[in-house]
Amino acid sequence: MSAEGNGNGSSYARVILQQCLSARLMVQPATESEDAEYVQIGRGLIVYVCFLKGASETMIDKMVKSVLEARLSEPTDGGRLVSILDLPGDVMIIPQATLGGSLKGKVMQYHGNVQKDDGLRLYTQFVEKCEKTVAIANVKTGQNSIVRYGTYGNRQVFSTETNGPYTHYIEF
Amino acid sequence: MSAEGNGNGSSYARVILQQCLSARLMVQPATESEDAEYVQIGRGLIVYVCFLKGASETMIDKMVKSVLEARLSEPTDGGRLVSILDLPGDVMIIPQATLGGSLKGKVMQYHGNVQKDDGLRLYTQFVEKCEKTVAIANVKTGQNSIVRYGTYGNRQVFSTETNGPYTHYIEF
Repeated sequence: MSAEGNGNGSSYARVILQQCLSARLMVQPATESEDAEYVQIGRGLIVYVCFLKGASETMIDKMVKSVLEARLSEPTDGGRLVSILDLPGDVMIIPQATLGGSLKGKVMQYHGNVQKDDGLRLYTQFVEKCEKTVAIANVKTGQNSIVRYGTYGNRQVFSTETNGPYTHYIEF
Repeated sequence: MSAEGNGNGSSYARVILQQCLSARLMVQPATESEDAEYVQIGRGLIVYVCFLKGASETMIDKMVKSVLEARLSEPTDGGRLVSILDLPGDVMIIPQATLGGSLKGKVMQYHGNVQKDDGLRLYTQFVEKCEKTVAIANVKTGQNSIVRYGTYGNRQVFSTETNGPYTHYIEF
């Protein structure tokens, strides 16, 4: 890529996918007067997402399609892998700006990341498109799969149980 | 990269790093006569690793150095990030061949992965080098940090609690 690039090759977004049996994520830290707030999902897909410089909203539809239609989820009967929409299963989206890091010596640098306000806008669009896509799939399957997501910019206090995370990395 | 390449650009190994408060991994599935066996770590670093075609043992030292010396761990006092060796903390290594996948349409392809016997050899060397490096650090720090690792080729049944996974992706 040219010197105008984002320093992360030609990619504009990075996604990590993991399968889970359950996952729990803090979306609001505790304050003096209130307990922390958490969201959780059951069997489903964990989606870590990070946008890099040059990312634009024209990518969102393709990203969501790839993430939700990729055949990476194992049916309970152990048959052929299916998409999370076909499983059907829940989705947890975790904003993870650290994924944009590039290791220089012993230090991670994040020069390739989008500006924070652009990242928030793209993240919000990504979440909304996932919610719409799962809602449409729910009508077809008659299930009630849920989408839960982290608060952009917060520390993503997170725990999960898996039957094998089956981790995949995708660049867009 | 040329047509002789591994189809994954010029990278020969992929690593994902996550911070954890605890992690637990199955290393031996249950049999008719025996329960499943698990290993676990406390506060520390989770290292998912995958070797691609063209990977060689000459890479191992650099990979281990990068992973164990990268300043990505938060001291309990919340000060500047330090390496897992300086934290000091435990290390859990998870072989994760799926990380070599490349999405074609809705299907993941793994043409870029090393052959399984080469992958096992490199994985074993990576684990041993991590164990040696942590053992040397233990002598310096007077701590007893542990290295635990998954069984190559097995399903990596895994659970973790984090205070923020702080996920990083590194290619070698």
